[in-house]
Amino acid sequence: MKRVEIYDTTLRDGSQAEEVNFSLEDKIRIALKLDEFKIDYIEGGWPGSNPKDFQFFKEIKDYHLKHAKIVAFGSTYHPKKSPETDEIFKQLLQVKVPVVTIFGKSWTIHVKEALKISLEENLELIGNSIRYLKPHVEKVFFDAEHFFDGFKADPQYALAVLKKAKEAGADSLILCDTNGGTLPHEIGTIITQVKKELGEDLVFGIHAHNDSECAVANSLEAVRLGATQVQGTINGIGERCGNANLCSIIPNLVLKMGYSCSCAEMLYKLTEVSKYVFEIANLSHPPRLPFVGRSAFAHKGGVHVSAVLKSPSTYEHIDPVLVGNTRRVLVSELSGKSNIIYKAKELGIDLELDSPLLSKIVEEIKKLEANGFEFEAAEASLELLIYRLMGEPKQYFELLSYKVLDLKSYKHEAQSEATVIVRVPPGVGEVEHTAALGNGPVNALDNALRKALERFYPQIKEMELEDYKVRVLPGLPGTSSKVRVFILSKSKDKKWGTVGVSTDILEASCQALIDSYTYKLFLDKRKK
Amino acid sequence: MKRVEIYDTTLRDGSQAEEVNFSLEDKIRIALKLDEFKIDYIEGGWPGSNPKDFQFFKEIKDYHLKHAKIVAFGSTYHPKKSPETDEIFKQLLQVKVPVVTIFGKSWTIHVKEALKISLEENLELIGNSIRYLKPHVEKVFFDAEHFFDGFKADPQYALAVLKKAKEAGADSLILCDTNGGTLPHEIGTIITQVKKELGEDLVFGIHAHNDSECAVANSLEAVRLGATQVQGTINGIGERCGNANLCSIIPNLVLKMGYSCSCAEMLYKLTEVSKYVFEIANLSHPPRLPFVGRSAFAHKGGVHVSAVLKSPSTYEHIDPVLVGNTRRVLVSELSGKSNIIYKAKELGIDLELDSPLLSKIVEEIKKLEANGFEFEAAEASLELLIYRLMGEPKQYFELLSYKVLDLKSYKHEAQSEATVIVRVPPGVGEVEHTAALGNGPVNALDNALRKALERFYPQIKEMELEDYKVRVLPGLPGTSSKVRVFILSKSKDKKWGTVGVSTDILEASCQALIDSYTYKLFLDKRKK
Repeated sequence: MKRVEIYDTTLRDGSQAEEVNFSLEDKIRIALKLDEFKIDYIEGGWPGSNPKDFQFFKEIKDYHLKHAKIVAFGSTYHPKKSPETDEIFKQLLQVKVPVVTIFGKSWTIHVKEALKISLEENLELIGNSIRYLKPHVEKVFFDAEHFFDGFKADPQYALAVLKKAKEAGADSLILCDTNGGTLPHEIGTIITQVKKELGEDLVFGIHAHNDSECAVANSLEAVRLGATQVQGTINGIGERCGNANLCSIIPNLVLKMGYSCSCAEMLYKLTEVSKYVFEIANLSHPPRLPFVGRSAFAHKGGVHVSAVLKSPSTYEHIDPVLVGNTRRVLVSELSGKSNIIYKAKELGIDLELDSPLLSKIVEEIKKLEANGFEFEAAEASLELLIYRLMGEPKQYFELLSYKVLDLKSYKHEAQSEATVIVRVPPGVGEVEHTAALGNGPVNALDNALRKALERFYPQIKEMELEDYKVRVLPGLPGTSSKVRVFILSKSKDKKWGTVGVSTDILEASCQALIDSYTYKLFLDKRKK
Repeated sequence: MKRVEIYDTTLRDGSQAEEVNFSLEDKIRIALKLDEFKIDYIEGGWPGSNPKDFQFFKEIKDYHLKHAKIVAFGSTYHPKKSPETDEIFKQLLQVKVPVVTIFGKSWTIHVKEALKISLEENLELIGNSIRYLKPHVEKVFFDAEHFFDGFKADPQYALAVLKKAKEAGADSLILCDTNGGTLPHEIGTIITQVKKELGEDLVFGIHAHNDSECAVANSLEAVRLGATQVQGTINGIGERCGNANLCSIIPNLVLKMGYSCSCAEMLYKLTEVSKYVFEIANLSHPPRLPFVGRSAFAHKGGVHVSAVLKSPSTYEHIDPVLVGNTRRVLVSELSGKSNIIYKAKELGIDLELDSPLLSKIVEEIKKLEANGFEFEAAEASLELLIYRLMGEPKQYFELLSYKVLDLKSYKHEAQSEATVIVRVPPGVGEVEHTAALGNGPVNALDNALRKALERFYPQIKEMELEDYKVRVLPGLPGTSSKVRVFILSKSKDKKWGTVGVSTDILEASCQALIDSYTYKLFLDKRKK
């Protein structure tokens, strides 16, 4: 079985992505997670480029990594300096890590226009840089920047760069598609020529970008042609359209192409790692991400659902359990009884195919869906509904009334105020009448409701609303349309979705808010 | 130059995506946009599966499509019925469209387990279905469902399915990677064998899914091997991880591989089409989307920025202008300006590249966009903004204040009331103070505003609000988020979009409403 090394650059190239800004603490936490996942190399940053990266290399030494080797990244030294006098270059060794990766130019236009030196001088720069670093570290990797574009422009020069780096002792030559414009068949043609010139036994790797939406395919093609190192990032974050996505490359290599790598044995943690990194990056996790996304094994069409329940491989390319993901049967317009049975089982409720309760639930869901409800992402509302129809309603408070006032006068800020009356417990309990302001009418209503409930249930403070979505439903014209509100809530260890529908956005929001708070109280009760 | 046909299934396979629910009006609008973009085939839906799709085929006939052919989708007829007695199958012809696509099983396990018929019966089913449809339509395409998985399991049977469909007269055989698990090198091997068996002149297409993150690469590989039709969706939406992304496939084929297709000449509208579809689907537009994403040509790294300004190809695989996208570089406004010049020209306003007014407009738009505004679908708001900055504000009334009260008491319906004070004309005119109810706070506000204005401008009665959309913007948690409101209005002969942004949904709605009514009055004035 052929082995491939996995090289993660989430902390360096990944941090070049728009909207991504890792703190020092973020970088440490991600590095530890990647180590636990048995990534072989973790590129921690460019020590010469900023103090945060420098500090990272210092602090990560306090942790005992179990598997991964930390890598420092940098470029060849400045053409007007020497390895001994270039301060930025010297920092690569000051951080004392086992592996250093440096990039050098392999596209003539970049040598002439960016470095403004001769082609020959660039070759010397690359050779000298590698030779200087080599005795001080275990390994030196050489990133041939813009290799594929460089090869297309001047194949002889691009090959000369590789030869120079190899002679100087680089442990692996990484062929970079820096602009991400190369297509898989070009990768094949070029790598074949490289091997012809530099030998079939050449040790090389691939570093792809996703500008043509081919970064994963390009990486796989390079491995098929003998690359023993794949560079990429978690979920493919990176500058512009991002880097090659390791969360797709690793399972493709391991589950489909028969390659092995250290993290193969940790594959069941892939979804967890993917979500963890985005949680820290404060990016929402795209549902359609292959292998690890929330929708990756979600079945909506009725035909698909019944087939998948009989035999999962009919509409699933792999078993989701292998990558730590789960099958989801979406309760949607098309849903029949088998969807509901499956859903109820997930919730720990056993329903028989011929039970009258099941028919009642299906009927009620169909009625609600015809009225604009959607339970796909609102499992908490669905669960509460099922309990209600089972005759075990979960109700910890009663909203007797609300009133929301929103006003704006010429040249003044808009102002929103809400008042609510709640009774706890419902029917017989104490009445609380309170009011709150908000930066919009929905927020004011939420604030007032929360204020009223916290008096009785202080644990409401442990939860927060993470996301709020509004969808205007077709049917009525313009502003008299129905709206569907979806709320995602979270506490320390759980997230849940709730839904509400009305022509009145405040009433719809109110329904979703009530379900959200109720579900939190229900979870607490169940724990005990 | 080789030609490829582009077949869009956003309205059918795309609508299987989680969170996507197109209304009839949404489907019509998307179809018109795709036609304008010169997509060759638009798969409108499955007429037999639901009344909405059936209605779509009926209504789309009222529009004169300039280029695209509408396609109805369905399966082979039910094994226990005949083409004449299968109601769902018959509806494929009742909708009277020029092209029909039917799918049939090519994987033995599906024939046995899903259809529960013999392999021979399945071949008959496919042959009979195609033969029955063929005389009634211009073209019949045959989707060989699960073709690649079927080929791996039993190549002889998968080929027999293709042969049968070809004999029966199918105009193109579409090889489907239904589960999305196939890798590019497998696509190559299998298609090569298919051509060996069915002839080098075989007319075939490709339908890929993205479960391995290789749908784009798989589609390109198929085209390289002779596929003349590519099926996919805008932005790759679809069940699970989605379909092949036409927004990446088309520019790769046209700009890099030397293929031609009808929409090649419309490529500069690619980004617009991509955003338009997601705006209608109410999905946020992922910034890292290749070619069309907001970050696709955004340069963050300092080294990249200066290099890109000198010579864009150093860090850009294509010129963003070619796909209607823009370079985003902090120090340069050049791309922004040419964009605005282009937009202004569309609106009939001539702007010079070096005019100070142009800089002012670009600056103001950037500021508004940073605050959450989007003018992509809100041309009326953009036009009014440009006139305002030109010192020719279009203002026919002034909203001095509004107040909205929304209340709900136990067991009563929610009630919404709005009061407004407007002055006509602004600054000096008469003041009207009025009130109205509505079936929600936004509708109440709209009703009150309309009531106040109609006294002065009776022509307001000629317009109505056709669509109202709310998008919650990321940034703030839960109900305190900012919202963007988009309103589509129409009169007898025109439709226009307006936008508003605020943390307060009523204030955001109010901004969009004011622009909408103002634009109507401006149109009337311009006519005279």
